[in-house]
Amino acid sequence: METNQKSAPTEEAVLISPIQMLTHWQGHRSLTRRAIEIFPEKEFYEFSIGGMRPFAQLCMELIDIAGAGVRGMATGDWSGPDMNGHPAPPATKAGLLALWDADTEEINKFFPLITLERFQEHEAAFGMYEAPIYSSLLYFIDNEIHHRAQAYVYLRALGVEPPAFWERPR
Amino acid sequence: METNQKSAPTEEAVLISPIQMLTHWQGHRSLTRRAIEIFPEKEFYEFSIGGMRPFAQLCMELIDIAGAGVRGMATGDWSGPDMNGHPAPPATKAGLLALWDADTEEINKFFPLITLERFQEHEAAFGMYEAPIYSSLLYFIDNEIHHRAQAYVYLRALGVEPPAFWERPR
Repeated sequence: METNQKSAPTEEAVLISPIQMLTHWQGHRSLTRRAIEIFPEKEFYEFSIGGMRPFAQLCMELIDIAGAGVRGMATGDWSGPDMNGHPAPPATKAGLLALWDADTEEINKFFPLITLERFQEHEAAFGMYEAPIYSSLLYFIDNEIHHRAQAYVYLRALGVEPPAFWERPR
Repeated sequence: METNQKSAPTEEAVLISPIQMLTHWQGHRSLTRRAIEIFPEKEFYEFSIGGMRPFAQLCMELIDIAGAGVRGMATGDWSGPDMNGHPAPPATKAGLLALWDADTEEINKFFPLITLERFQEHEAAFGMYEAPIYSSLLYFIDNEIHHRAQAYVYLRALGVEPPAFWERPR
């Protein structure tokens, strides 16, 4: 862990403020982006262990959740992706990274629209997962950490050193 | 995700309250505990992919961080584990689970002693990692998700179905 420079101090005592949580989320997403960049192109689409999905397919799930998820949290409109089946990945990592970066912008645009009261509201995320908004948000982040770690094992098995887990903007 | 029953509603608008974060942390720890329980005993100590540590060794890191971490967050005393080398695991999963459960009690005892103001204080966790307390806390949880996901790949490679990622007390 390095000295925190981006997380703004809060005016009043809170465990974590929305801007701090946004920074935390985007920090994780920037690390996942680096894992995508370093992943060998062919294996990104094909490599698997134990019958699990290749990293490209995992990334499509993460892309579906992040973009539609932040819009749902901010607006209550959870339409969009089919959580039972995500789109096929673009043919190249560069194409997938463009989708990733579009989500980054969506998150920066919609996250600040989530009111503080909203985080405690119960709602069915994507019409399926009933939970308080804060819990769905943590789920989105945790799910990314979980699948990225899976990709880290893929990278190690391929003989590629993954980016350091702790090197994230915080 | 299932309907949240354990997370208490907060009196005022906050992104997440301390009791909600405690429930979130212990929910993840209960899932990791189930991953340990289901892991084949011999492979728990020996199985590895790509030169990574066996799950038993990863668990010793998680045990060191959780117990000493919650005491450090609550009291400012970060002494105890050596972050550059964790103890050898007990000879059996049952022995390791006893350490795991002792941490569970320590967390339930010390976490409520962390004041709200404290989460925003900057401090060197374990004397090494300068960050706000909330950021160190998230790091502890994220690090567990990361290593547990690694164990999930080990389990899949061994032909064992891991516990469902989303089945956690929240």
